[in-house]
Amino acid sequence: MGLLIAIPALVAVAALLWAAYANWYVIRRDRGTERMQELQDFIREGAIAFMLEEARVMAVTMLVVGAILWALFYWEVAVSFWIGSILSMLAGFIGMNAATQANARTTQSARRSFKEALNVALSGGSVMGMAVAGLALGGLALVIWLFREDFNPATLDIHTKTALGIPGAEINFIKAALIVTAYSMGASLVALFDRVGGGIYTKAADMAADMVGKVEARIPEDDPRNPASIADNVGDNVGDVGGLGADLLESFIGATISVIVMALYIFVGRGNVDIQGLLAQFGGKIGLEENYWWLTLLPLLYMAGGIVASLLGIVYIRAIPRQENMQGILMNGTRLAAGLTALFAILTTALSPANFTPFWSMLLGIAAGVGIGFVSEYYTSYRYKPTRELAQAYASGPAVGVTEGMAVGMLSALWPVLFIAGATIGAYQLGGLLGVAYAALGMLSFVGMTVSVDSYGPIADNAGGIATMAKLDPSVRERTDALDAIGNTTAAIGKGFAIGSAAFAALGLIAAYMWAAASSAVEVRIPEIAMISPAVEIGAFVLAGLIVGAMIPYVFSALLIRAVSRTADVMVQEVRRQFRENPKILTGEEPPDYKRCITITAHGGVKRMVLPSLLALGMPLVVGLIFGRYTLAGFLVGALLSAVQLAIYCANAGGALDNAKKYVEEGHYGGKGSEAHAAGVIGDTVGDPLKDTVGPSLDILIKLMGVVALLFASLFPVAPIFM
Amino acid sequence: MGLLIAIPALVAVAALLWAAYANWYVIRRDRGTERMQELQDFIREGAIAFMLEEARVMAVTMLVVGAILWALFYWEVAVSFWIGSILSMLAGFIGMNAATQANARTTQSARRSFKEALNVALSGGSVMGMAVAGLALGGLALVIWLFREDFNPATLDIHTKTALGIPGAEINFIKAALIVTAYSMGASLVALFDRVGGGIYTKAADMAADMVGKVEARIPEDDPRNPASIADNVGDNVGDVGGLGADLLESFIGATISVIVMALYIFVGRGNVDIQGLLAQFGGKIGLEENYWWLTLLPLLYMAGGIVASLLGIVYIRAIPRQENMQGILMNGTRLAAGLTALFAILTTALSPANFTPFWSMLLGIAAGVGIGFVSEYYTSYRYKPTRELAQAYASGPAVGVTEGMAVGMLSALWPVLFIAGATIGAYQLGGLLGVAYAALGMLSFVGMTVSVDSYGPIADNAGGIATMAKLDPSVRERTDALDAIGNTTAAIGKGFAIGSAAFAALGLIAAYMWAAASSAVEVRIPEIAMISPAVEIGAFVLAGLIVGAMIPYVFSALLIRAVSRTADVMVQEVRRQFRENPKILTGEEPPDYKRCITITAHGGVKRMVLPSLLALGMPLVVGLIFGRYTLAGFLVGALLSAVQLAIYCANAGGALDNAKKYVEEGHYGGKGSEAHAAGVIGDTVGDPLKDTVGPSLDILIKLMGVVALLFASLFPVAPIFM
Repeated sequence: MGLLIAIPALVAVAALLWAAYANWYVIRRDRGTERMQELQDFIREGAIAFMLEEARVMAVTMLVVGAILWALFYWEVAVSFWIGSILSMLAGFIGMNAATQANARTTQSARRSFKEALNVALSGGSVMGMAVAGLALGGLALVIWLFREDFNPATLDIHTKTALGIPGAEINFIKAALIVTAYSMGASLVALFDRVGGGIYTKAADMAADMVGKVEARIPEDDPRNPASIADNVGDNVGDVGGLGADLLESFIGATISVIVMALYIFVGRGNVDIQGLLAQFGGKIGLEENYWWLTLLPLLYMAGGIVASLLGIVYIRAIPRQENMQGILMNGTRLAAGLTALFAILTTALSPANFTPFWSMLLGIAAGVGIGFVSEYYTSYRYKPTRELAQAYASGPAVGVTEGMAVGMLSALWPVLFIAGATIGAYQLGGLLGVAYAALGMLSFVGMTVSVDSYGPIADNAGGIATMAKLDPSVRERTDALDAIGNTTAAIGKGFAIGSAAFAALGLIAAYMWAAASSAVEVRIPEIAMISPAVEIGAFVLAGLIVGAMIPYVFSALLIRAVSRTADVMVQEVRRQFRENPKILTGEEPPDYKRCITITAHGGVKRMVLPSLLALGMPLVVGLIFGRYTLAGFLVGALLSAVQLAIYCANAGGALDNAKKYVEEGHYGGKGSEAHAAGVIGDTVGDPLKDTVGPSLDILIKLMGVVALLFASLFPVAPIFM
Repeated sequence: MGLLIAIPALVAVAALLWAAYANWYVIRRDRGTERMQELQDFIREGAIAFMLEEARVMAVTMLVVGAILWALFYWEVAVSFWIGSILSMLAGFIGMNAATQANARTTQSARRSFKEALNVALSGGSVMGMAVAGLALGGLALVIWLFREDFNPATLDIHTKTALGIPGAEINFIKAALIVTAYSMGASLVALFDRVGGGIYTKAADMAADMVGKVEARIPEDDPRNPASIADNVGDNVGDVGGLGADLLESFIGATISVIVMALYIFVGRGNVDIQGLLAQFGGKIGLEENYWWLTLLPLLYMAGGIVASLLGIVYIRAIPRQENMQGILMNGTRLAAGLTALFAILTTALSPANFTPFWSMLLGIAAGVGIGFVSEYYTSYRYKPTRELAQAYASGPAVGVTEGMAVGMLSALWPVLFIAGATIGAYQLGGLLGVAYAALGMLSFVGMTVSVDSYGPIADNAGGIATMAKLDPSVRERTDALDAIGNTTAAIGKGFAIGSAAFAALGLIAAYMWAAASSAVEVRIPEIAMISPAVEIGAFVLAGLIVGAMIPYVFSALLIRAVSRTADVMVQEVRRQFRENPKILTGEEPPDYKRCITITAHGGVKRMVLPSLLALGMPLVVGLIFGRYTLAGFLVGALLSAVQLAIYCANAGGALDNAKKYVEEGHYGGKGSEAHAAGVIGDTVGDPLKDTVGPSLDILIKLMGVVALLFASLFPVAPIFM
């Protein structure tokens, strides 16, 4: 066990060291003119203030939830939950911090050279990428090491019945499984808060800035006269960087722990699993105990390989001296990371007693992830037909544009879903539900790379904003715009990737939940429990669970959209008030009151993130406790199905609507200022909350519900309590 | 059997007699001024031309599909299929015909009195309502009577193995079940064509008329100078009347035959059903054969009761002399019909050997239907908060409005889904899958009433159009607008109802499919087959089927939206061309070329309805034949879940966006001509294809896929063919 946990721990430390180095690389750059420094300080302070306000709400929630876990289970479970949540907060904070350091410095570097600006932005992004990967893996290694006694195969079989006294609740659970699940849940809950809160913040600020600025006052984007402009730039950092980091951190953890939990259940022979058969799948060259450690810790080794691969990918991109076709170089870097991840996985597998079943499953996940990323690019980049046709639709007016954008989003669900279904079937054929969990792991394994490339986008976006607000030479803005354009495509790919990986991570978690739920007094074979109950009477409940589960993503999305528009509305009033009460703002003689706008969005974001988050946390508990564990299985599957489609639709519709507007801005169909452009601005505004608030939050919704179900599985009765 | 089939047949004849009477009542009214007559003729001719063009495509499809059924099964199956499709075409045609007779006559009556106009419009609608109910029930009675030998319990057990030679395809089927299923499939296929073709037609014309007319040329709605204005009015008739009628006809049939098919399977003891236990549920006072006839024909009797109740409801509305609160009177009429339906069901049950299990299940369905209707009204009528808030959002611009509209639509899924889930659980507890099928039947039983009230809306809409185009006194338009406003709410309720009933009918069909699929060589208990296969290896296929099934409604919707916008685009070019080439059109000196616009939309509608329809027809076959019957079960359930949410979202978002615009037009937030109104026009245009093309077509999609699966169940292998 020692060596198996030491390697991931060392890799995690290496990743964190890189993050520190990249952070130092960014900080020692020049911050530019006084005005630029001032703007950067505004953005940084706004972002930090928001994250602190958010952290306060989260801290209270975490304390309460942790205390409940302590009371219900063990103190170790609560501690593990807290470790997960603190690391998740930390990951978001480190990334956001680096991004707000890098923005003005990217602008300043862009005054000299494009490549230098790219290096600064990418370094800023890689702080986040490596922090996410390092903290996730390191934290998991830490938890397992801290509570190694509970993971010891000799003590593993000590399990307890639940004490809540719910009729029919009689699942035995394994303490070690609870510990890692709680770690994952801590990360999930923080991620949901970050994504939802940050998503509301960023889009409310964006919408308000656009609506009053571009449409009413007719001043350009990022104009310093717009009181909402700083809030808009803060939003990029807290939503697109902080939120994204926390999101992928928890996908990474969720995918890893679902394999571990299943392995634990296999080992103690729960869930009526044929343990010898399953162990045989992993080879059986060495004794049972050693086999156990390999079985349990193999996912950590795979992940460690992915982190090293990601690091090499980043080094590759930075080392290329060329300036042309940066897009291609970024893509090559990602491909390199994916390829190396697979290579390391082969080596790991060859050295382990396991056979190649986990590896092949993983490879399917990697392939599906790359495929989904490509489809996202096809549907949202204006180098391809769908977005170009959408730009043409803008020429027929905003209504046709928005309608066509929705159609593009809906159509874009086709291939990703087929990829997910194909990989699911393949992985299941290879290794059953465990194979599916390994496919999820594969998709997430090179997360360090994808987060780095993703976070680079908002930094470039911010750099452009600072260039405009600091009234630098237009050539600087042109360079940052070129950076931003590359960032937009990588962000779209990243979003597709986040959805695909979330679907798989959730599938892995649900699979683990079913596995856990199957280890009950009622005799059922595992695949059966997947959907249907042992008792005839429960069948309708499963069906009802499916239907109700499929509804949840819609209601959740509606709450988020409303939160965005309500917050934007308050902000619009404030901007109008400032323009009205102080006419000198619009003439540029006096600066607007940025702070008030920042405060308004921060309050709105934090206040309105609570209800959707509680919905996500509470629904699985309500369904499970009242309607029993089979209904909950249906509920989770229904929510997963529905959320995957809705998330792909939202992300790609939003991306296409945005990029089609950019295509018009490049001079097509009349260019800037034309009717088509006006339609594009409206289309973009409609698409924004879809792609940046709803889509990403849906990813976390399904993962959080899955992990909550897994953690509390032992409390849920078999049949509905009223039967 | 004789009496049991004679009563439904007589009721069907009575319904058709009422339709004839109502038609006669409409026709003998005055058609008004010469200009009005001319406009009516234009609309009528356009509608008839479109339906004939559509019928040509349908006829070819029906011939081919029927021939395939003949080759695969029996000639009786093909004949039954043809009867279903012909009756469905007939229902759409009769309703459309009556509506295009009633429109100008409603306008003319509105010149005299509001109540008279209402009576004419409602009579026109009731032609459709009663024709739908009468033809559906009468046709079913006819089919059973024609092929009574195959329904004879003595010959019932003669069943055949399929001859296609697909490995693993070994379900035994009952000929009688194939016959009624084919009847239902004929109606479904026509309904899909009608809904999709009519939906594309109506919204393409509407969008084009609005975009060039209101936005570019700045002429009011229904202005005779707009070349697209007649096509727009034609669309109301072929889409909202013809499409709706065919849709509900097939829901009615689908709900009825799924009970019959299950009853047949119960009786021959297939699907490992405990036949004695199930028969006991229906009482067992008389001999087995008599029991059989009651079991099989009971749904026909319930439906006959519903038709009589609907007739009485219509008579009640017409008889009330008051003019105030017509909305309330219409609602009371519907409530009366629902109440009487329940009453007749009690009487029927008391007279039958059955106990009250089917009745209670039915009652649950009726209650859920009424509940869903109310929720639809709440979210789409501007008498309630959601739509009023949406109107306020319009004041902040089109993007905020559209976004808020989407949020309203998503949020509106909450209660309908809970109602559906609740009724499903309740009905299942009462009578298993058969109970669920009876709940579907309950929801559809008073379809005569809902169709009548629904079809009245487009007639009022048309009447208003004619009033404006014929330049009648504004007071006439005011009266027809008042009629229209009532019609809008009833239409929204009707749409909610159509979705709810489609969900239940599809559930019934899927249940019957599972029941049929279970009667195979592989031993599985019925509820298990619902979701999961007997063989472990198939589990992943079921899961993949669920995920892929959930994707289908999105792709289908995307195809429809694109069909609308593409057709609208061609039309916009044509209108612009007419304005450009003949400036006298806009000055009113020369009439535009209405015919060309009508032809363009008709071609567009017919051409573009083929691909989505083939998708709906082909997907279950492809999935079933290649991946086997369990994967198909997952696929159908996934499609159902996803389609229900998406359909509710589309229907209510569209309805709310439309009515919020109307609320602004009534003088709120600046009234007509304000910024809010401009935003409302855009929002309405975005919502239109959602509520009138996508939403209703999704209803049929899931029903058609269900009935196709049921009919071809015997051809599908157990496991995927490549395993």
